[in-house]
Amino acid sequence: MSDVSDWWRTAIIDMEPGRIDIRGRPIQELIGAVSFPQMIWLMLRGDLPTEGQARLLEHALVAAVDHGPQAPSIATARMAVTCGASLNQAMASAVNLLDDVHGGAGEQAVELYHMALESSVPEAVSRWQAERGKYVPGFGHRFHTPTDPRAPRLMALTREAARQGDASGAFVEIAEGIEAHLASKAGKPVPMNIDGATAVIYAELGFAPPLARGLFCLSRSVGILAHAWEQTEQGGRNKGPTPPEYRWTYEPEG
Amino acid sequence: MSDVSDWWRTAIIDMEPGRIDIRGRPIQELIGAVSFPQMIWLMLRGDLPTEGQARLLEHALVAAVDHGPQAPSIATARMAVTCGASLNQAMASAVNLLDDVHGGAGEQAVELYHMALESSVPEAVSRWQAERGKYVPGFGHRFHTPTDPRAPRLMALTREAARQGDASGAFVEIAEGIEAHLASKAGKPVPMNIDGATAVIYAELGFAPPLARGLFCLSRSVGILAHAWEQTEQGGRNKGPTPPEYRWTYEPEG
Amino acid sequence: MSDVSDWWRTAIIDMEPGRIDIRGRPIQELIGAVSFPQMIWLMLRGDLPTEGQARLLEHALVAAVDHGPQAPSIATARMAVTCGASLNQAMASAVNLLDDVHGGAGEQAVELYHMALESSVPEAVSRWQAERGKYVPGFGHRFHTPTDPRAPRLMALTREAARQGDASGAFVEIAEGIEAHLASKAGKPVPMNIDGATAVIYAELGFAPPLARGLFCLSRSVGILAHAWEQTEQGGRNKGPTPPEYRWTYEPEG
Amino acid sequence: MSDVSDWWRTAIIDMEPGRIDIRGRPIQELIGAVSFPQMIWLMLRGDLPTEGQARLLEHALVAAVDHGPQAPSIATARMAVTCGASLNQAMASAVNLLDDVHGGAGEQAVELYHMALESSVPEAVSRWQAERGKYVPGFGHRFHTPTDPRAPRLMALTREAARQGDASGAFVEIAEGIEAHLASKAGKPVPMNIDGATAVIYAELGFAPPLARGLFCLSRSVGILAHAWEQTEQGGRNKGPTPPEYRWTYEPEG
Repeated sequence: MSDVSDWWRTAIIDMEPGRIDIRGRPIQELIGAVSFPQMIWLMLRGDLPTEGQARLLEHALVAAVDHGPQAPSIATARMAVTCGASLNQAMASAVNLLDDVHGGAGEQAVELYHMALESSVPEAVSRWQAERGKYVPGFGHRFHTPTDPRAPRLMALTREAARQGDASGAFVEIAEGIEAHLASKAGKPVPMNIDGATAVIYAELGFAPPLARGLFCLSRSVGILAHAWEQTEQGGRNKGPTPPEYRWTYEPEG
Repeated sequence: MSDVSDWWRTAIIDMEPGRIDIRGRPIQELIGAVSFPQMIWLMLRGDLPTEGQARLLEHALVAAVDHGPQAPSIATARMAVTCGASLNQAMASAVNLLDDVHGGAGEQAVELYHMALESSVPEAVSRWQAERGKYVPGFGHRFHTPTDPRAPRLMALTREAARQGDASGAFVEIAEGIEAHLASKAGKPVPMNIDGATAVIYAELGFAPPLARGLFCLSRSVGILAHAWEQTEQGGRNKGPTPPEYRWTYEPEG
Repeated sequence: MSDVSDWWRTAIIDMEPGRIDIRGRPIQELIGAVSFPQMIWLMLRGDLPTEGQARLLEHALVAAVDHGPQAPSIATARMAVTCGASLNQAMASAVNLLDDVHGGAGEQAVELYHMALESSVPEAVSRWQAERGKYVPGFGHRFHTPTDPRAPRLMALTREAARQGDASGAFVEIAEGIEAHLASKAGKPVPMNIDGATAVIYAELGFAPPLARGLFCLSRSVGILAHAWEQTEQGGRNKGPTPPEYRWTYEPEG
Repeated sequence: MSDVSDWWRTAIIDMEPGRIDIRGRPIQELIGAVSFPQMIWLMLRGDLPTEGQARLLEHALVAAVDHGPQAPSIATARMAVTCGASLNQAMASAVNLLDDVHGGAGEQAVELYHMALESSVPEAVSRWQAERGKYVPGFGHRFHTPTDPRAPRLMALTREAARQGDASGAFVEIAEGIEAHLASKAGKPVPMNIDGATAVIYAELGFAPPLARGLFCLSRSVGILAHAWEQTEQGGRNKGPTPPEYRWTYEPEG
């Protein structure tokens, strides 16, 4: 039997009738004893965070829940329920859109920060733009200028965590260094955005870069669900992206 | 301009450059001040829960994160990453499977409990089976007999919340009444399962039934992400459901 | 070994190294010999259609490929690629939206036609509205009045197929009967739409109602892919539903 | 009004009440006049193919519909319906898995062929492995050795098309050159697989590489739908990847 069972091996969960162990701990001892962010950490990392680490993770999760219905993911979730989709289905179509451009900046920013840690801010930015393209992940916002209100708050909380020994603070320095470097190059503010700020926290906490994307998906799933539910209550059938009377512009190739 | 803006109206979020308000509260005042479960509640309901309500919600979210790779959602997530899918993409395909049968029992159980509240346990069960089918949502488990270890723990915590005024306790009574009623009818234990137990909490907290499904999706997304990530680290290409040498049984229609 | 193999039994495909049989026929004998619609039929039904049946299926598949970017599915696919999604990923999020309201009308219309066949047009319409709601599936269009140009063309082709013995024509009569009945009740045209017209063909060809939805998904996937690809070539990053300067209307609950 | 309409500009479709033009052609003139593969070409390319080009496209679409339930996409579709998913929803979760590894080999093979056309077979293979990794897309099969029965049949049909002027035949030469080159390097057959063979056709017909993936998705969607439907008829609830009694292997990290 072992080859079939071994095909699906995992260190996350063990079970037998009446027993569920998560990372080696009985589930009933975790329920009521750990917070949701602690459980997220335990599931992803295999151990439990300190209280301070869990709080810092929680701040990042709280900060990124929503950016409104013009985000393609949120618009998709709202349209989906008017097509007859269930809430899980609406969430699925929407989370799928949190891809490289819409949901990958946090992951990329963690990578960038590690590059800066190993070299310097100017070298990391310059290498990123040469190898990965002109967009420096985590910085710049087409809407929130000069400041995304989430970023300074998250930086302040990370500094506080560093003072209490729950973070090194190194990635705060790096991210603020990148922000200053980009502003100096551009001659105007290039504000740290939510991806840049949460990436600082995920880097401080030692998460692998792809998990910055994964954690963002957990956080933004809250906004996706809230909007899908609000649209359910508003009603509507086959809601399109614009009021129907606008239609679209037909522009034949010439 | 208003007809275009009005097409996407919401009470959840308001923004202008440099300002993001969630349910009327500046985001920077929420970050660091509310827990992730409080933020989830605020996004879905428009107000903030009491500390006790937030803790109860947190217990339910913690309890349902994972049930292992034989769950079709988890298996899908793990297979997805070996197909080249990003983490958000793996989460999407998997959350999509948390539909009526795999993720809808909590929603249905909340409905059932409300029916019992308005009539009685036997009447509600009997009406459910007549109208909705033989499966009584939230009860019975093909694996965890006689007891799903999560259920009694969640019931104890809900009772504690009721003693402290954060819940009524009425839905604990109903759910345990259903469990006893079904066991008596079947002549064997029909244990309250994770959906039945979390539905008690969601009903106690006043969530609309579809949100029981939505909250389950938030919780199980954690397990989906953890398994997708573990599989990423294990590697593999185009992982199928069984070891390849088993293939499948060809059974022509006769 | 058989219990593991039997878990995945199928009558669709059989394989061993160097051999692939589809519904009992070697794949290399099908390639080059059957049309794509014939292959679709073979996969779904287990046998091959007559030439006339295959043509009729082909007409339905051709007719429903696209209805423009205001359809929520198409909008989702176009937004998805600007979020970094691959083409398969964009198709996934979009096809997911072809649910009960956006993609289920064909399935429902086949059910309605069978009800009318077993009783009468007025009885079937009246029973549908009593049991399933006010929308009569397959009829009425918020845009194409008085006539959806696809419907009369498909009806003419189905009549032609009936003359040649490849269809009964019974469902053409029923659908046109429903169209006349609804117009008479409403005092204005209630035109047969694409779902109503393709449902006639799927009913004539003996497809089970859910396959009307499935076949629509195959057809509309073409439009979804075409729009996703066009958007890829247009470029854009995180394209939202409306031009960004419109934002949305914040409407707090009172 | 134009900025809102222009946000969704397209060359694919134009509409007004009672009129639908696809690529400048009235839909009712296309229905009944063009085949489904011709319509696919028209939607993706803007013009109509010759009869011979359409037939060649059709062969590729027919060839790739299915490879059985051990493919993660097919397994996902079958599990999905047992979770309560509708057919469109099952298709969505499954098509999502046709990503770089499971569905991207055709796209990559078209790229590889173009590299070989511009240099030589050995140079292209060597450059591919240096830049993109050891897997040469379109060649090698863990199951069909020494020959995937679809490949020689598709090559024969492409050669026939070349003789009739509907293809150049250049990519047949390249692909068979790669097959021979790889076999010589490996000292054993490295058979051209379905992705390698359909990529020859897509390259011959002038499709951009990403559309090889898109067309594969259209083709494999047929198999996905057929398996989802067969599973619907078989029934089952929350079907997991293996029979439940096998469970999985818990392997704690050491």
